[in-house]
Amino acid sequence: MTDHRASHPLRLQDIAAFDHEADVVIVGCGSSGASAAIAAADAGATVLILEAASAGGGTTALAGGLIYMGCGTPIQKACGFSDTPEAMYEYLIRASGTNADPERVRLYVDGSLAHYDWLLAQGMHFKPEYYPTKNTNTPGDECLIYTGNEACTGFAEHATPVPRGHKGQAMGEGGGSMLMEKLIASARAKGVRILCDTRAQTAIVDHTGAVVGLLARSEGRDIRIAARRAVVLCAGGFIMNTDMVSRHAPWLQNHTTLNGNPNDDGSGICIGLGAGGAAMNMNEGFVCLPFYPPANFVEAIMVDSHGQRFINEDVYHGRMGEAILKRYPERHYMIVDAGHMHDFNRPPLGGFRIIATGDTAEELETELGMPADTLAHTIALYNRHAREGRDPLFRKHTDYLRPLEPPYAACEVTPGSGAFFPVFTLGGLRARATGEVLTEDGQAVPGLFTAGRNSCGLPRSGAGYSSGMSIGDATFFGRLAGASAAGSPVRTMPDAR
Amino acid sequence: MTDHRASHPLRLQDIAAFDHEADVVIVGCGSSGASAAIAAADAGATVLILEAASAGGGTTALAGGLIYMGCGTPIQKACGFSDTPEAMYEYLIRASGTNADPERVRLYVDGSLAHYDWLLAQGMHFKPEYYPTKNTNTPGDECLIYTGNEACTGFAEHATPVPRGHKGQAMGEGGGSMLMEKLIASARAKGVRILCDTRAQTAIVDHTGAVVGLLARSEGRDIRIAARRAVVLCAGGFIMNTDMVSRHAPWLQNHTTLNGNPNDDGSGICIGLGAGGAAMNMNEGFVCLPFYPPANFVEAIMVDSHGQRFINEDVYHGRMGEAILKRYPERHYMIVDAGHMHDFNRPPLGGFRIIATGDTAEELETELGMPADTLAHTIALYNRHAREGRDPLFRKHTDYLRPLEPPYAACEVTPGSGAFFPVFTLGGLRARATGEVLTEDGQAVPGLFTAGRNSCGLPRSGAGYSSGMSIGDATFFGRLAGASAAGSPVRTMPDAR
Repeated sequence: MTDHRASHPLRLQDIAAFDHEADVVIVGCGSSGASAAIAAADAGATVLILEAASAGGGTTALAGGLIYMGCGTPIQKACGFSDTPEAMYEYLIRASGTNADPERVRLYVDGSLAHYDWLLAQGMHFKPEYYPTKNTNTPGDECLIYTGNEACTGFAEHATPVPRGHKGQAMGEGGGSMLMEKLIASARAKGVRILCDTRAQTAIVDHTGAVVGLLARSEGRDIRIAARRAVVLCAGGFIMNTDMVSRHAPWLQNHTTLNGNPNDDGSGICIGLGAGGAAMNMNEGFVCLPFYPPANFVEAIMVDSHGQRFINEDVYHGRMGEAILKRYPERHYMIVDAGHMHDFNRPPLGGFRIIATGDTAEELETELGMPADTLAHTIALYNRHAREGRDPLFRKHTDYLRPLEPPYAACEVTPGSGAFFPVFTLGGLRARATGEVLTEDGQAVPGLFTAGRNSCGLPRSGAGYSSGMSIGDATFFGRLAGASAAGSPVRTMPDAR
Repeated sequence: MTDHRASHPLRLQDIAAFDHEADVVIVGCGSSGASAAIAAADAGATVLILEAASAGGGTTALAGGLIYMGCGTPIQKACGFSDTPEAMYEYLIRASGTNADPERVRLYVDGSLAHYDWLLAQGMHFKPEYYPTKNTNTPGDECLIYTGNEACTGFAEHATPVPRGHKGQAMGEGGGSMLMEKLIASARAKGVRILCDTRAQTAIVDHTGAVVGLLARSEGRDIRIAARRAVVLCAGGFIMNTDMVSRHAPWLQNHTTLNGNPNDDGSGICIGLGAGGAAMNMNEGFVCLPFYPPANFVEAIMVDSHGQRFINEDVYHGRMGEAILKRYPERHYMIVDAGHMHDFNRPPLGGFRIIATGDTAEELETELGMPADTLAHTIALYNRHAREGRDPLFRKHTDYLRPLEPPYAACEVTPGSGAFFPVFTLGGLRARATGEVLTEDGQAVPGLFTAGRNSCGLPRSGAGYSSGMSIGDATFFGRLAGASAAGSPVRTMPDAR
């Protein structure tokens, strides 16, 4: 064995023989890789998946399993919600912010109902039940829940809010593992082979620069795999690669919890870069601060060290987490009141605790070391407006507007104070929506495709992320990449050993 | 002529003959390229510079010419300032924020006095005079000025503030063109050849992946240049490449003014990526909002649409510009008072204008459409503290603290409102401090070096930028890259046509 670096692809002319071959070779058996495999097999290709772990599943199997779908799915309709392509498109464009990719959003929206049907065809089942309370997931086996900022200021004025988070019928956080079981079973039934304990190292390229295979480490030895048509990189993001995060998204390292599986180490991104692809959106990440549940914490206010509010507190936990982490090391506090006290009978999900209390706002302000007439003014102004049923400053939804009543308390939500900030990356290989990996100057790398967090896909902004966008993106664009790969021309037909 | 893309290097075996050759071939004749050329020539190398424009100079020739130097330069001493390596290091690390590269900062600090001497040796002259007023540059031919956040909260507590912006002896904004005249004259005197109207297209690589030359377009035809030892990419940043900015730093496109020369098009970055290098820090940029001069605007306060302050207003214009552009499209206002009225006799540098006035703070607040007791409270609180000579909220320096007196006025400083936001990029090729271009997995690309904005260098953060950091970085690390290139092994000795 020699040290094979992703940045140095092997040359086809130097390969004596291949150990395996398939039309389409996929790196990674998470939700993007499994979806790509199913689509490629459906298109008639022979498919081999290389999985670094001892079993497929990837990060999706560890996730709650929400999938962002809309345009009037049967579940949305059964629960009494009316959704339109216009509303879904407008929401997703705004959620992507300045990083938006309109072509990708268009495809995702227009294909959403067909994607729902495709998931059913893979064996998924969704229970037509809506969970109406603000939460990070449905606690039982309910399917439908608001998972983003749809009903919040900045979005609701532009796109009629509807819930689009869909979880397969599983209890609590079990949606992700169930989804992966279904996808892997479907792939196997279609003849897809999965080689576990096999870690892709670098690409094999022909004299034109086209990718024609992969070198991998499998159970202690180097193996060479020929991809007659194409390679699809679906190896996940890079949140577990400290070196890459420190160079590309160092802000994600400020007292956060890495949210992923150990193989989210950027190796798929590095293989793509080594083969000539470009990366983009590498600075972006999803940041969560689960300040709810319980949902009535949304009635609290969030302030900075100046005692000033800075956000409508009814936002999705990801938008809140991003705002606070981006302002690190600025200190932040959640100001709760008498009505919240019973919520501390057990530790809130967010991991924060009460650090100051006051019978009056002035007392709380003093205990927090803030100058007089700062936090006290903020609370008085908020209460005055809340009594009138409005929040003219940040336009928090009226559902969560109520005057705060003494006694007051402050929970610190600064990163590093004990608050829980799980994070993952939203940057990856630049690719067409149909999966072709692109160079910095916009050329497709022949024979190379990507999807999921290995790519820069649909979710582009921590501030605009909604739960279900990443698995939605991985399964939807995984399918497109798999189909594109299966349709690629045959480039080489080496002997398999 | 065929279409040669940076992402597809040519192979040495396909090159019949070379048109030019040199030990070290440098792309770009701005301050980094010229400095690299001088250092390479001093090390005994033959040097050829390819310059896309019709004359050397690059963006430095368009700039004010400030150079960030310290540790007790003769100018600092003559002006009565005592600086230390510890203070300079601590300041630069904090200025880089979470993106800091300690090794690069260390080298830059420890070599600062020698760099000053090196600039003298190239013919530069610095006038030992300090300009004490907050400004974007020295207005006359004074040398020394504060050009960053050295004296501001967040920095001054950790590193004794001293001015480190040094401008060569030229009037006003003439420092950059003078610097380039001196550097180019010095390079020519050392035998460096400069081929103008010559645009590098892509690298030429040997069978090991080492860079051994360049393909370029020169006066309408393709030419091939052999680099016996190394190529140094000094072609500037990518602010003029709309496509690259939209992918890597889209926030820089929100109603800003592109600050650079037309050849800051990312072509040098693309050549490096095509040859296997990685890029980093691509999301970062310098943003300026020249809200001073005149300096007494620093006595104004800046507020957002909620009437809240968000920053100590004595910060460097770049830190202010970054804070406001990052919060786009949030509206922002500079609140001025009776004492500022004469400053509007001619348009301020920042391009903003008065959009609301009030005989009282309440009147101004109403005219701006803000809820009652927001801006008025902010002004009252600021004034109360300013009368006591303190700013406990944002810790603006006491030099600029005075209570605001009615009548009041608001200038809008939102991007798109007419305010002037010049921007340039701070991302580029990943490299060692000594110039070697690195792959994503940290391997040097043999024969390839970089410096200046073509690379990810010393300045890493718009929020922590100080004027003079970019030219300081380009000249200092340009020298290191040139010396490294000259010391590279000879890799090929093809016939020159």
